[in-house]
Amino acid sequence: MILAFVEYNSKGIAITVGAVMHIELKRHSRDHLSKQIAQSLADRIRSGLLQPGMKLPSVRALAGQLNVSLVTVAKGYEELERLGLIHCMQGKGCFVGPEPAAEEPEWEISSDWQLAVVDYLPRANVWRYLKGPESETAYRFHISEIEYGLLPNEEIGANLHRLIRENPSIVAQYGPVQGDAELRRLLVRHFAARGIRAGEEDVLITNGSQQAIDLVARAFVGPGDYVYVEAPAYTGAIDVFASRGAKMIAVPVDRDGLRVNTLLSLCDRFPPKLIYVTPSYQNPTGAAMSAERRSRILDLAQSRNCLVLEDDATSDLYFGKAPPLAIKAMDSHGHVIYVKSFSKVLSPGCRVSAIVSSGTLLSRLVAAKTMTDLGSPLIGQKAILPFFQGDRLEKHLSRLRNAMREKCAVALGILRKHAPEGVTWTDPAGGMNLWVSLPAHADGAELAEMARKAGISILPGAVCYSGEPEHHHFRLSFSFVDTGRLAEGMEKLCLLMHRYLESDRKASSGPVL
Amino acid sequence: MILAFVEYNSKGIAITVGAVMHIELKRHSRDHLSKQIAQSLADRIRSGLLQPGMKLPSVRALAGQLNVSLVTVAKGYEELERLGLIHCMQGKGCFVGPEPAAEEPEWEISSDWQLAVVDYLPRANVWRYLKGPESETAYRFHISEIEYGLLPNEEIGANLHRLIRENPSIVAQYGPVQGDAELRRLLVRHFAARGIRAGEEDVLITNGSQQAIDLVARAFVGPGDYVYVEAPAYTGAIDVFASRGAKMIAVPVDRDGLRVNTLLSLCDRFPPKLIYVTPSYQNPTGAAMSAERRSRILDLAQSRNCLVLEDDATSDLYFGKAPPLAIKAMDSHGHVIYVKSFSKVLSPGCRVSAIVSSGTLLSRLVAAKTMTDLGSPLIGQKAILPFFQGDRLEKHLSRLRNAMREKCAVALGILRKHAPEGVTWTDPAGGMNLWVSLPAHADGAELAEMARKAGISILPGAVCYSGEPEHHHFRLSFSFVDTGRLAEGMEKLCLLMHRYLESDRKASSGPVL
Repeated sequence: MILAFVEYNSKGIAITVGAVMHIELKRHSRDHLSKQIAQSLADRIRSGLLQPGMKLPSVRALAGQLNVSLVTVAKGYEELERLGLIHCMQGKGCFVGPEPAAEEPEWEISSDWQLAVVDYLPRANVWRYLKGPESETAYRFHISEIEYGLLPNEEIGANLHRLIRENPSIVAQYGPVQGDAELRRLLVRHFAARGIRAGEEDVLITNGSQQAIDLVARAFVGPGDYVYVEAPAYTGAIDVFASRGAKMIAVPVDRDGLRVNTLLSLCDRFPPKLIYVTPSYQNPTGAAMSAERRSRILDLAQSRNCLVLEDDATSDLYFGKAPPLAIKAMDSHGHVIYVKSFSKVLSPGCRVSAIVSSGTLLSRLVAAKTMTDLGSPLIGQKAILPFFQGDRLEKHLSRLRNAMREKCAVALGILRKHAPEGVTWTDPAGGMNLWVSLPAHADGAELAEMARKAGISILPGAVCYSGEPEHHHFRLSFSFVDTGRLAEGMEKLCLLMHRYLESDRKASSGPVL
Repeated sequence: MILAFVEYNSKGIAITVGAVMHIELKRHSRDHLSKQIAQSLADRIRSGLLQPGMKLPSVRALAGQLNVSLVTVAKGYEELERLGLIHCMQGKGCFVGPEPAAEEPEWEISSDWQLAVVDYLPRANVWRYLKGPESETAYRFHISEIEYGLLPNEEIGANLHRLIRENPSIVAQYGPVQGDAELRRLLVRHFAARGIRAGEEDVLITNGSQQAIDLVARAFVGPGDYVYVEAPAYTGAIDVFASRGAKMIAVPVDRDGLRVNTLLSLCDRFPPKLIYVTPSYQNPTGAAMSAERRSRILDLAQSRNCLVLEDDATSDLYFGKAPPLAIKAMDSHGHVIYVKSFSKVLSPGCRVSAIVSSGTLLSRLVAAKTMTDLGSPLIGQKAILPFFQGDRLEKHLSRLRNAMREKCAVALGILRKHAPEGVTWTDPAGGMNLWVSLPAHADGAELAEMARKAGISILPGAVCYSGEPEHHHFRLSFSFVDTGRLAEGMEKLCLLMHRYLESDRKASSGPVL
């Protein structure tokens, strides 16, 4: 069994030793290395990447490859055994599962890790298994989506119905790879109203923004390329860049968005290939990047001749006045690849996002889209199309803004009233998320686990960092649950925070897994 | 401007010199190298990967990098200029476009090819631009899909309508990453009836088979891995493996499918990581792999500990008796990743395929799916679901089989009656395609271009080869056009073949581009 590892050093830069199994060790972390090893393997076991009966590497082999002591690995294995995730047999080694499998597992081939190019666990999975069965989670604050009841489901349903009645063969048709021409024409008008000049030929329809980010990474990011991301950042983007072998440079976010000065100071040492930003109500913090920083990022991209990937899911969800124009609106030289999601605000079920780019950049993205899936399903595109005629979308967005503003106010009100001392949070001017910071010694993952048992789900902040994580935050999405339940759940969560921080003060280094 | 190139040697093995621009030179080809260079650049210009105003590398630079003479490159550029695709200016160099651009193009960044990781032109694009506007193509024989009128559009439309009426919030929901649980449960029964044992947890829903192939390649194929493909093969798969940097080994197909003896003889020299096959009515030839060969491929996969990617789009479209069981049906050790398309036979618009695999292999594919798009849209999955209850699918398939058998008979009848001497074709027992072979000196691409002008589209055979292509074939899909038009178009095509082969005899080396 050959294993190889990728490590992140303290600068958050991936050092690819091999390409098979991905254990991230952070040597300057507060967490013991043994705990990190145990956590990393536990994630794999719980998410199914390691399965019952699979043999783990020997203590000696793993210690050698990770360049840690034998004791460190042995302690990690002990912890995993204590948790019932593995069992060790004298003279035979350690195996996944609480006890020897009754019979030969059927997937023996899978135990040959040489087969896998990427043994990379998406961060999304890490917290998905945390949440347990949905039915048990009464307060789903980890879901950064909009409450179903606020979306125009009836209208989209009626659109679909009319479409099918008028032209039944629509379900039989592959659409054009680049997306439905009529939708792209309408989107051109939509973007123009937001200051973004583009022709129909500059728009590519994708299955949501996750696919858009993935296509951009496929077309333009390769092993060793420096990709700048926000710290904290959208987890799905971190996964994609990591899977391309990029070296991610994390730049902190403050209330005006990504700190451009820090970005500038790093560019000489780590020449950027791509800068990934979510300027309007940043995911996860909710920060809105200032117009001045937007403009400086564009200047930087032009002077460095690099790309900016501008991911815009929530610019239309402002509570007061609209955010500054998109970076793409100022982009006269084509450095910005703009990704606009319509999934979140219209129909996650139809899953439509659009990329705006031009020239050969766009051609390359269309080529990547061709290889990925030959084009997005037509029905979803046609179903949302009528929203871009007349003012239907604008009316809908206006209602959404009011609803989100109200939800955010409810969440903030309860935090102000009930949150323990020492807990802080962002106060976003739009979007769907709050970023809550516990005192520096606390751990958002511990709180998340405690909350899960009480039927509340939150996103532990550590998964939002591409490099060295900060552990004491969590993301709270106020957008998905109805307002009554939001208030109820937030009060419970505040109580839990009290309990957690008190217990934490008593025993400051309990088990985390 | 930095350029780097990838070349295929005469064994069809990619030699990656760099990773930017991809010019395939086949040194043992009948085609002059200058013609190959011109063709390669023409494809890029026509498909938008190179755009008006972009400067081409100097003759000296390109000659150096491709290791050909200055004259060879100069001749290629002359041909491109003759075609009006580029213009050359004394002392300045050659530029894309028939004449100098009126103003500075807006996409200047794109001319820095350093930005691109992959400048790889999907084969699908090569022939897409050939076909011209759809309205002008009266006889679309290049589309390997089923005639819209034969698909159960009304039923699927009614399903969608009912779904939306009963639960409007379905358009608001992201589905599970792995796919709708109810659909997966029904598919388990569907597969069991075809000899494939799998649990609900072994099934992953994808956006069509193209995405399934792409996910498998992402999870298991890396640079330098040997991937065995059929010769000829499905173009979309070749694109995907090439984009992963795989070394493709092409194994000829005869009427019993992939020649397993040839495959075996190559395995020592090129240890397989993955074998990609389309056993039941192979795309493009229509061959059905014998049960004995299926079983030998599985033995080989087990003894070599490699993977088989079994792509099954058409096993249900048999004309007489059913094809042998899928390789997956015999796979007790999990070496086979089975991909089943329901897009083609049910609803290209809903775009649903399923992967069957297990253990960590499946976990890795789910991880790749997460990064790609977080899961397929729910509505398409729910819309086709009722077909897997009771015998609705079986009844539909039975009608489709009759229709395909009839279409195939019509196409074959006309070929027998009207095709020129020296032209041969396959006689498939199922599926949607015929593979037609012109005399060895002829060129399917020349015929395709001639046919296009007459409103007939066919797929030039050369794009179906991962390595050294054979030029004298084309794929003819009899499935997409209605039977009357099929007969009409086939007669016209036979006339064209006569004309082409006669003119070809007169001037055996005319311009091709």
